[in-house]
Amino acid sequence: MKLQLLNQPMFAAGTLRSLARRASFSSLAAKWEGGVSMVQGASRGIGLEFVRHLLEKNEKGHVVATCRNPGKATGLLELKDKFSERLCILELDVTNESTIKESAKSIGERYGSLNLLINASGILSIPNVLQPETTLNKVEKSSLLHAYEVNAVGPILVIKHLWPFLKAGGGSGTERDIAVVANLSARVGSIGDNRLGGWHSYRASKTALNQLTKNVSVEFARKKDPIICILLHPGTVDTDLSRPFQRNVPEGKLFTKNFSVQKLMTIINNAKSQDNGKFFAWDGQEIPW
Amino acid sequence: MKLQLLNQPMFAAGTLRSLARRASFSSLAAKWEGGVSMVQGASRGIGLEFVRHLLEKNEKGHVVATCRNPGKATGLLELKDKFSERLCILELDVTNESTIKESAKSIGERYGSLNLLINASGILSIPNVLQPETTLNKVEKSSLLHAYEVNAVGPILVIKHLWPFLKAGGGSGTERDIAVVANLSARVGSIGDNRLGGWHSYRASKTALNQLTKNVSVEFARKKDPIICILLHPGTVDTDLSRPFQRNVPEGKLFTKNFSVQKLMTIINNAKSQDNGKFFAWDGQEIPW
Repeated sequence: MKLQLLNQPMFAAGTLRSLARRASFSSLAAKWEGGVSMVQGASRGIGLEFVRHLLEKNEKGHVVATCRNPGKATGLLELKDKFSERLCILELDVTNESTIKESAKSIGERYGSLNLLINASGILSIPNVLQPETTLNKVEKSSLLHAYEVNAVGPILVIKHLWPFLKAGGGSGTERDIAVVANLSARVGSIGDNRLGGWHSYRASKTALNQLTKNVSVEFARKKDPIICILLHPGTVDTDLSRPFQRNVPEGKLFTKNFSVQKLMTIINNAKSQDNGKFFAWDGQEIPW
Repeated sequence: MKLQLLNQPMFAAGTLRSLARRASFSSLAAKWEGGVSMVQGASRGIGLEFVRHLLEKNEKGHVVATCRNPGKATGLLELKDKFSERLCILELDVTNESTIKESAKSIGERYGSLNLLINASGILSIPNVLQPETTLNKVEKSSLLHAYEVNAVGPILVIKHLWPFLKAGGGSGTERDIAVVANLSARVGSIGDNRLGGWHSYRASKTALNQLTKNVSVEFARKKDPIICILLHPGTVDTDLSRPFQRNVPEGKLFTKNFSVQKLMTIINNAKSQDNGKFFAWDGQEIPW
């Protein structure tokens, strides 16, 4: 919608900007009732479950699901068959910034606004490449840098490029009055809670993600953007990521993807401005830094 | 000293190991009265000041000073003229692991033990290359990775390769009963204390260093090694690192190198086992994670 108020002298500049913002918001709200959500890292695991949940529980919401190789993302393709109108699948590799820019451009052209961004991608181990370290002696520079690039740098670059659309979206079309950026962190990223040691590359990357997310939350608040950033610990969930390490999980503490995502979506849907920059476990408890 | 006890059948294996350890420790203590300290990143700034302090205040202590380019380290070369017997200068670039290994090898051959390791290297800005970010829009992947490699990965690799000599050294020859690893961190690496935002690459790298140091401290404690790791915030010190940002420092809060290093050495010299894994400001106050 193009604004026709600019030549009307009865409006002061501030009022004009405010009206423009409201007009723009209400036009988007009308256009995207139910809101637009993006799940980054959506081909499997918790990311895929978020996409399923968002499509099934909100019958008007639109979802952008991104992953490295959409052609092989069978879970997403099945959802596309069922929700073809409301699901848009895009190629995005967090280690390749040009794919982030391209996705942002597509989202801008197609929706113009975003109300929720979930950064769900993450690596813990890759057979024969990356193995969670059990001792300092096994710490390798390549592993530290690789985990950092995927788990900390990637999500922050995604926020950087989607920022304009989150700002345009705010809470419009949703039950919230703000847009939410939810970064999947992990309790092992907490320094204060670190009693076991080990997993150096993964831990440090999630700790850095916590700091970067906090940093972004400070800027959003200072600029009064209608966006908050939160960090989420999903618990230990039965996914490919946790599979090699599940034998150490106490009985009853290995969650299904459905259980964890339901809990996390409750946190997201109820998020308020005062939650900006906080780190929540699946049960809503705050985790120390 | 070669141990001559191995064929004496009156000693059980455990006793033998214990005796060997004690014999080995006392021989080192005798050999390196005053202790052996290593300062990594010693060509200028706080690192150079640590070297000067260690040589001047402890007239028996030996110091290994490392930097990227010893030939150009005029401050170190001046100290070498004055303290030729007790100062050893080695080439070490934290971004080049083979130079870390080479330094460790030299220290092993020359001293066999280490009582203090100070990781003082660090980057905040490089003209035309790395600039502390004032907004998310200026965050670049290359800056995030570069700061992480130098400020977080580097010091951890140094600890990894010096670990055997710190273990052999413990507190022998010093007033402490433990070896100390002191990593120079910064208050802006605190997530809980982050109210201003910005400086994404530097902040995240120091936060990750805090987590990695905590991680290493957990392993040292579990293995009952006679080593602790601590993190130190030196305050804002008048060095090349802080120079471009000094105009924002309140009056009386820009410390001389001498003042800061005196304060930090007091913390190091009084460090006890229970300080393992903690993060201290120059005045001894603990900083939240």
